[in-house]
Amino acid sequence: MRKPRSIAPAKGRLAVLVPGLGAVATTLIAGVEAVKRGMGKPIGSLTQMGTVRLGKRTEKRAPLIRELVPIAALEDVRFGAWDPFPDDAYASATHASVLDHALLEQLRVPLSAVRPMPAVFSPEYVRRLDGPNVKKAPSKLELGEALREDIRRFVRENDCARAVMVWCASTEVYLEPSAVHAELGRFEKAMAASDPAIAPSMIYAWAALKEGVAFANGAPNLTVDIPALQQLARKQGVPLAGKDFKTGQTMMKTVLAPMLKARLLALNGWFSTNILGNRDGEVLDDPGSFKTKAVSKLSALQYILQPELYPDLYGHFDHQVHIEYYKPRGDNKEGWDNVDIEGWLGYPMQIKVNFLCRDSILAAPVALDVALFLDLAQRAGMSGIQEWLSFYFKSPMVAEGLYPEHDLFIQLTKLKNTLRHLAGEELITHLGLDYYEP
Amino acid sequence: MRKPRSIAPAKGRLAVLVPGLGAVATTLIAGVEAVKRGMGKPIGSLTQMGTVRLGKRTEKRAPLIRELVPIAALEDVRFGAWDPFPDDAYASATHASVLDHALLEQLRVPLSAVRPMPAVFSPEYVRRLDGPNVKKAPSKLELGEALREDIRRFVRENDCARAVMVWCASTEVYLEPSAVHAELGRFEKAMAASDPAIAPSMIYAWAALKEGVAFANGAPNLTVDIPALQQLARKQGVPLAGKDFKTGQTMMKTVLAPMLKARLLALNGWFSTNILGNRDGEVLDDPGSFKTKAVSKLSALQYILQPELYPDLYGHFDHQVHIEYYKPRGDNKEGWDNVDIEGWLGYPMQIKVNFLCRDSILAAPVALDVALFLDLAQRAGMSGIQEWLSFYFKSPMVAEGLYPEHDLFIQLTKLKNTLRHLAGEELITHLGLDYYEP
Amino acid sequence: MRKPRSIAPAKGRLAVLVPGLGAVATTLIAGVEAVKRGMGKPIGSLTQMGTVRLGKRTEKRAPLIRELVPIAALEDVRFGAWDPFPDDAYASATHASVLDHALLEQLRVPLSAVRPMPAVFSPEYVRRLDGPNVKKAPSKLELGEALREDIRRFVRENDCARAVMVWCASTEVYLEPSAVHAELGRFEKAMAASDPAIAPSMIYAWAALKEGVAFANGAPNLTVDIPALQQLARKQGVPLAGKDFKTGQTMMKTVLAPMLKARLLALNGWFSTNILGNRDGEVLDDPGSFKTKAVSKLSALQYILQPELYPDLYGHFDHQVHIEYYKPRGDNKEGWDNVDIEGWLGYPMQIKVNFLCRDSILAAPVALDVALFLDLAQRAGMSGIQEWLSFYFKSPMVAEGLYPEHDLFIQLTKLKNTLRHLAGEELITHLGLDYYEP
Amino acid sequence: MRKPRSIAPAKGRLAVLVPGLGAVATTLIAGVEAVKRGMGKPIGSLTQMGTVRLGKRTEKRAPLIRELVPIAALEDVRFGAWDPFPDDAYASATHASVLDHALLEQLRVPLSAVRPMPAVFSPEYVRRLDGPNVKKAPSKLELGEALREDIRRFVRENDCARAVMVWCASTEVYLEPSAVHAELGRFEKAMAASDPAIAPSMIYAWAALKEGVAFANGAPNLTVDIPALQQLARKQGVPLAGKDFKTGQTMMKTVLAPMLKARLLALNGWFSTNILGNRDGEVLDDPGSFKTKAVSKLSALQYILQPELYPDLYGHFDHQVHIEYYKPRGDNKEGWDNVDIEGWLGYPMQIKVNFLCRDSILAAPVALDVALFLDLAQRAGMSGIQEWLSFYFKSPMVAEGLYPEHDLFIQLTKLKNTLRHLAGEELITHLGLDYYEP
Repeated sequence: MRKPRSIAPAKGRLAVLVPGLGAVATTLIAGVEAVKRGMGKPIGSLTQMGTVRLGKRTEKRAPLIRELVPIAALEDVRFGAWDPFPDDAYASATHASVLDHALLEQLRVPLSAVRPMPAVFSPEYVRRLDGPNVKKAPSKLELGEALREDIRRFVRENDCARAVMVWCASTEVYLEPSAVHAELGRFEKAMAASDPAIAPSMIYAWAALKEGVAFANGAPNLTVDIPALQQLARKQGVPLAGKDFKTGQTMMKTVLAPMLKARLLALNGWFSTNILGNRDGEVLDDPGSFKTKAVSKLSALQYILQPELYPDLYGHFDHQVHIEYYKPRGDNKEGWDNVDIEGWLGYPMQIKVNFLCRDSILAAPVALDVALFLDLAQRAGMSGIQEWLSFYFKSPMVAEGLYPEHDLFIQLTKLKNTLRHLAGEELITHLGLDYYEP
Repeated sequence: MRKPRSIAPAKGRLAVLVPGLGAVATTLIAGVEAVKRGMGKPIGSLTQMGTVRLGKRTEKRAPLIRELVPIAALEDVRFGAWDPFPDDAYASATHASVLDHALLEQLRVPLSAVRPMPAVFSPEYVRRLDGPNVKKAPSKLELGEALREDIRRFVRENDCARAVMVWCASTEVYLEPSAVHAELGRFEKAMAASDPAIAPSMIYAWAALKEGVAFANGAPNLTVDIPALQQLARKQGVPLAGKDFKTGQTMMKTVLAPMLKARLLALNGWFSTNILGNRDGEVLDDPGSFKTKAVSKLSALQYILQPELYPDLYGHFDHQVHIEYYKPRGDNKEGWDNVDIEGWLGYPMQIKVNFLCRDSILAAPVALDVALFLDLAQRAGMSGIQEWLSFYFKSPMVAEGLYPEHDLFIQLTKLKNTLRHLAGEELITHLGLDYYEP
Repeated sequence: MRKPRSIAPAKGRLAVLVPGLGAVATTLIAGVEAVKRGMGKPIGSLTQMGTVRLGKRTEKRAPLIRELVPIAALEDVRFGAWDPFPDDAYASATHASVLDHALLEQLRVPLSAVRPMPAVFSPEYVRRLDGPNVKKAPSKLELGEALREDIRRFVRENDCARAVMVWCASTEVYLEPSAVHAELGRFEKAMAASDPAIAPSMIYAWAALKEGVAFANGAPNLTVDIPALQQLARKQGVPLAGKDFKTGQTMMKTVLAPMLKARLLALNGWFSTNILGNRDGEVLDDPGSFKTKAVSKLSALQYILQPELYPDLYGHFDHQVHIEYYKPRGDNKEGWDNVDIEGWLGYPMQIKVNFLCRDSILAAPVALDVALFLDLAQRAGMSGIQEWLSFYFKSPMVAEGLYPEHDLFIQLTKLKNTLRHLAGEELITHLGLDYYEP
Repeated sequence: MRKPRSIAPAKGRLAVLVPGLGAVATTLIAGVEAVKRGMGKPIGSLTQMGTVRLGKRTEKRAPLIRELVPIAALEDVRFGAWDPFPDDAYASATHASVLDHALLEQLRVPLSAVRPMPAVFSPEYVRRLDGPNVKKAPSKLELGEALREDIRRFVRENDCARAVMVWCASTEVYLEPSAVHAELGRFEKAMAASDPAIAPSMIYAWAALKEGVAFANGAPNLTVDIPALQQLARKQGVPLAGKDFKTGQTMMKTVLAPMLKARLLALNGWFSTNILGNRDGEVLDDPGSFKTKAVSKLSALQYILQPELYPDLYGHFDHQVHIEYYKPRGDNKEGWDNVDIEGWLGYPMQIKVNFLCRDSILAAPVALDVALFLDLAQRAGMSGIQEWLSFYFKSPMVAEGLYPEHDLFIQLTKLKNTLRHLAGEELITHLGLDYYEP
């Protein structure tokens, strides 16, 4: 028996703070309220429904994750939000049209109570949106200070013991890391100078970290993928996770590509198209935001397939990802993938996948798990990048010098073995020769 | 550093003996001949093209499997076959229409040299086929002895040092384990009495095991899934593997179901249909053979999804598998899957997969790997069921009391960690906290 | 200007009598009630929303069909029904789950008022169903007389001027025409003797015709495809139409096959599978009922493609139709078609169609149009088979010696030119040379 | 019996002149040579394999089109071509990879004999291509004169009695009709001035018309959709046809949209994407050429669905057409369509079509038919726009003031009734009441 890690108990309330009170956030909040009232199940959430196998197959030990490690209870969660539109969570959820009208009616009271704080927002970074519920301040640094004040006030007024922040807002325009991102001092100076390289999402992340609040990035923005904020996280001892919630087509891709790799089937081409009609689709209709997303979506195949190891199999494939704003789809999202593969002696085969999914329905449990696992990490004294949460992200953050793991099943093994490790249980290797050789 | 296992070197020739010289076997044989001549690549084969990552990600060690452990070289392989049709491998491959005519022409000489020995065959067990190249003997025991004599002669005439047998023939009618299968003595008595419970595939397996030749079952037949033959394998110290090569739709299913399970998406229904037009399809058009196949195909979901652990998610799904003989498809096989799933709060989504695959192209490298890994196992002193080869089978054999692992990625982990174990390398757990915590 | 046909005006109420108060009938009735209240549009109905182009393209004359010929108004329709289950239309519609609960609630009063009369029913003819609301009588002839009394009473009590009957009940087991069907006298004797060759649907049709009520067959049953009842229709001067409402996959097939034929693309194979989870699916899970349906579904391709004229193109295709009962689909129906075609010099191509449709949503407007057009035909003095209504049926009835037209567009031309003919307008040939040559 | 039209017999050789010796043209030429040698069938060609039903269904008269009207025999066809690349038809067909290598080898002699004349070409109009086999001349008028000289020389050297020209080259950049296109005199002045509004395709068309040679436009270029050249055609008494060969996805669209319209199913959205990897795809990767194509592809739905007549059904749909250059597809083209429809009371349904087609295989018989029917028209004294050939085009040319017919089946009726008319046979209306009413 290994020694379990010391983890502070999940006592008191947990503030879950979300920039962006749109489809994902309201589906998350409404869902949590519904689950608390027994009106629905938190399907898709490992923290709520997942188990971990422990020991040998013959032992039949498989406790719930939330019994193995101390996860905050849903009853203790309080949601806070910022958004450039002043709609409360009820109005925003109604507009998003993800959840049935009848369900939202039953949750009208708790949802109406979630009113967004004025946002740090500028249409320069998200060109297809604009709204009036926006903070004004002389500089980005002062905007950041205003967010810190929001965090402190929310925690105080809601009597919370701890907080985490999860970015659930739109995709910002593409930014590359530059000099001002390289070091914390320069970053803060650039904030003071309102440098255009400082995107709103960075201001939120900075505010969270300064307040000792763990931060997760659900969008493909650069945000915390910069040395300055990673330094700050380590300095403050808070965990980070990101980036870009892995749902829909990319989730599917990080499952099918590992199948090809497992069986060493060659890849000639992978053509992906998405149609979606929600605000996310509208935002991505802007080329600036689309580029951010596309870069995030395109990298998975390279990392999974390792063309440097397998030049004959994966050295020359054509990978395309298209995202099209198509209004009739609403919040439903539809992916169509065509995968051109080759088997034995190069004979061609094709896989076509049509995934009729729902964006926010897939994202909400991911956002919940990320929030609750970050809180766990913080109580376990883990700071900086939480690579074991790669499972939830299209572009997993990793330590410098490491390649990210995109394979959903490697990610799951990493997550579950990390939980076993925290609980002092044996890691699972699936070797299993001991069943056969005494 | 762990201690590597002692494995005898792969010296001398290896006889690969295949009951069934049809599409799969001829695609395998032609492919090996083509690869030896540099006319094609053994895509899909881990023994030929696969690597294993060793150590930490930062070490960048990923040798070829065949450099990590001693796999027999293709140059040393000699193919022998039995078939009720007297066509040689060239004629049979031409009839199967899997490989291009031009390629077969270039391989006419080596393929024509592979002429099938008379088969142990009866249309009672495969109702849609019949052929003249069949052994006659007073009893099934004597048929078995004739096969043993075939094996010894083939090994002798081809100057082979070792042999393995891989069943590549058709699916037999459905049989349930019965009293005559329960113990070796009764089994051999039943052979002598030509009991109908003794299927031809069992006679082949018995002959192989008696000769100390490892046996793998590429079809869903009962064959070695019976105590009598498992006893014999242990007694003789030879490895066994099976059953039913995992290709096409079931391979896909054991990838998508783990995705659902990983993300805890609920399953309402999974409708699978297959169209195929080759001899395999014709055989499966017989309800007796279809039942054998269907039982093999239906079990994967139950084992992967664990409804007993997740009754809310996987307690009530409708799983259907249809296989239709549709001549225009030829050896190409097409699967269509419709998967009805549920996410957060029970909202429904659908996944549709259309897999335009090629049966024998997917099966050939599987058959090759199974043959070569069985030979490795035998040289490593591993006998009885080789669960680490589950990766290749629709219905993996396991020790009594264990549930089989159907998840392709758990199977791959098992296979690769077994190779690491044999080579004395550290097993990989993907924990990886050491990259972050000194 | 041609002379219009003399048609009696649509004065007074029209009884629409439906054997079978299941999903199709309740969707029809609820829809008509919703449309009357402005709560929905009768999408899919030519009598309600269709137009007919008249004259030259440059004239821009395109009146509504119901303005061109005198169609009964929805306000004048009264629905009567028979069913072996005693549920009223509200309860049955709720159970069918086709229409939203909220809509049904708003229509609870009119729907609850439609209570089924006891049915002529026997599980011998529809094996997967049974119910208590069933007529008892010493013979099938007396059952028929009881239905006639039902018709007279319904018309009287609802103060109707005219009536039509539309079979909306389940598919009966397969029956072939036999001696007792060949002539009216023998048919009625067989009714008196309760001959098994007299199916319930025939008793309904007989009762309708005897009462001078037009009859349409929405299912693939034999019913009025027999000389005895066709004689009766002519004798009584009432119109007949059938059989098997064309919706979903067959509608699609009678569109795609004409495309192949138009362009002379060859057909190698057409594989169709359907998944559906409603009572219709359950009934078709019985091989007897399935055979009836399959025969109806298989004939379309032969008639459209004319292999006798085009042996090279259509002489040798493999056509399969599968219907699978798959509960997760509910009343939604999903068709998957794979069509293997050949072009120039025989090069192969494939068309795959996935139709996510809704059975009753497609059938309801068809049932409405058939009812209203039959009433029109009767007022126009047209009796016997109404071939111009082929548009609505999978197996169109035709005069002896004629082949049926299955091509949806030929059927539409036939329907529209019949309407033009009735209205005394020029038929349209699309020649159009007069736009170019003075 | 109507009076047949006087048509000159098809005596002597017919020159078929094609600008563009790429995939379509070489597939056409190789196919004709293969058919002449009995090595393949001209599948897809109405002039070669089509029949026309004459008279009543009971008459069973259905002669071949080429027996009903005098179509030129394939033996009499001589192909000439222009192309900026100097490859002969054998080399170009090999590069295009549409037809099997083995077939091309057998046709090497006749194909090698087709060597392209120097083209009128400029990369300003087709930005992704360039080649050395290009005419030089001081002005566009002189380029036109050089083409006229080419035509005369080809006809003379090949001893042809007649000629037609069919544009089989790439899609040019988008051009709008302008003042220089409005009248012949100004057009020719603009040619002399080498005005940029004069595209190469217009120069070819002008040269053909000046030589009395019928012209068809297989691409979506403006070309002859301008008053100047239509005047010239009428003046010269030569027929015109166009534009943009209807194959693949648009053919499918003009079949499915008529189905929706026939049944009055509402349309919410139609999302079309295409992947293709041939030179055509490369050319369309240029936004200028893509716009030309997209405009051609987008119009069909509006004309078929008539939103002005059916605002509730077709007033508000989202129609998108995407074309993506995806190399692994080669000359094969794959369309994926998602169609969002509504039925009874507005309930939504979806149709998905995946068409795995082959561009040139579909286009070659269309090009052949257009050439041979234009020749027929010319011998029948028909000049100017041949609307009866709309069947073959994505954007059918029509007389001013008329809307084009896009519905494939209306187009087929128009074509076949025109043939009946030319032959003096009764037009078919599908009324058919005479089978029922004496």
